[in-house]
Amino acid sequence: MDQNEITSRDRALFEAGIKLGALYHQFMGMPVSIETVDRLESAIEKSVSLQPWVDLVKVRIDREKLRANENQFKYCELSGEMLDVEVVVTYDHVEVHARIRYDEEMRYPLMRIEKVSTV
Amino acid sequence: MDQNEITSRDRALFEAGIKLGALYHQFMGMPVSIETVDRLESAIEKSVSLQPWVDLVKVRIDREKLRANENQFKYCELSGEMLDVEVVVTYDHVEVHARIRYDEEMRYPLMRIEKVSTV
Amino acid sequence: MDQNEITSRDRALFEAGIKLGALYHQFMGMPVSIETVDRLESAIEKSVSLQPWVDLVKVRIDREKLRANENQFKYCELSGEMLDVEVVVTYDHVEVHARIRYDEEMRYPLMRIEKVSTV
Amino acid sequence: MDQNEITSRDRALFEAGIKLGALYHQFMGMPVSIETVDRLESAIEKSVSLQPWVDLVKVRIDREKLRANENQFKYCELSGEMLDVEVVVTYDHVEVHARIRYDEEMRYPLMRIEKVSTV
Repeated sequence: MDQNEITSRDRALFEAGIKLGALYHQFMGMPVSIETVDRLESAIEKSVSLQPWVDLVKVRIDREKLRANENQFKYCELSGEMLDVEVVVTYDHVEVHARIRYDEEMRYPLMRIEKVSTV
Repeated sequence: MDQNEITSRDRALFEAGIKLGALYHQFMGMPVSIETVDRLESAIEKSVSLQPWVDLVKVRIDREKLRANENQFKYCELSGEMLDVEVVVTYDHVEVHARIRYDEEMRYPLMRIEKVSTV
Repeated sequence: MDQNEITSRDRALFEAGIKLGALYHQFMGMPVSIETVDRLESAIEKSVSLQPWVDLVKVRIDREKLRANENQFKYCELSGEMLDVEVVVTYDHVEVHARIRYDEEMRYPLMRIEKVSTV
Repeated sequence: MDQNEITSRDRALFEAGIKLGALYHQFMGMPVSIETVDRLESAIEKSVSLQPWVDLVKVRIDREKLRANENQFKYCELSGEMLDVEVVVTYDHVEVHARIRYDEEMRYPLMRIEKVSTV
């Protein structure tokens, strides 16, 4: 294979990155509370699922961190440290599992490729 | 009254403005489709309702404009022209009804005070 | 005066609120470093100044908090606790000075009316 | 090579996707005018350049479309159709050139891999 040729695998990984980068910046800062967190997780999942090549989105917002960040009005803004998101993207038989999870040591919402496989 | 004194009415109007400005910029650009639009309206309402002094939020996304803006993947990004939002803010007995609605002539998502009253 | 009538003062306060709410949610999450912070302050000021009735915008991003929040790649995301913004809005001879500043005790980016006057 | 192994090339493409997805959702909706467009292009470039593995960012905002979208206050919100962005990401000797450009037919801000090479 000519290494300069763009493959389906390349494209699947590129698309997985797009989805994570987009959702992170789209949803950060949203007001969220213990009462609304279930609904927000579900709204993010449905919204991201609309985009091309997305097979599955699973969003978990950390309830403990949410409580720890509550302001005096009993809500907080959604931030990277509360977020755990898995996205599965399939492009032309290549399936990519990718994830955002906050890395406490790096102080960074790390986006990782967890698995690439042919389906 | 000293006109430089800040009144409850001033504060109620200021708070109503904050809520509209914030929600507009928070939610613009979200992926939305005919299938997810109900859920998105509800998620925006719940999220905005968390904020201090908010009594009521009613969000309507124009289904016709949504369809007209659909891309080939059958969704679009939420934009100002699709949005009709009413917010009621009450601060210390002053109730403000405010609204965002797209003004076709001005090409502008106009934010208006619809009513101010003492409750 | 009929208290249900909407005055220029009402409108000026409402507009000031809109500007603060909008800018907060528009600019939160931007990547920023010690090297780019001057430019980002200026870009926010220019962008907010475009909006109707805005006379002046002054943005200060706290360099100490920026450093304290730096990740291992030597930048951080702009967040409410770093931000100090003053906006002056004038609507039909009523001038409103408003401000966003993080309140450490409330854990909240407080938006306040600082002064209302007739000009 | 085990096809399930994650390579530097995979990672470079994933990172390029992240940068495009993030910047798109971060900067959409910003107020922009003919007077501020140079500064905004530069602010986006500097901000995106802070992120890991980014070698180069070139942002062009279409002045004609900007004018065509101006509201009565002589500015508009930055939207996908005005944007042309090139990003070069290098991860462990793999260089990816990626781009966002609006596709008029698809009505979609298409994100594409333009070139992958070893450096």
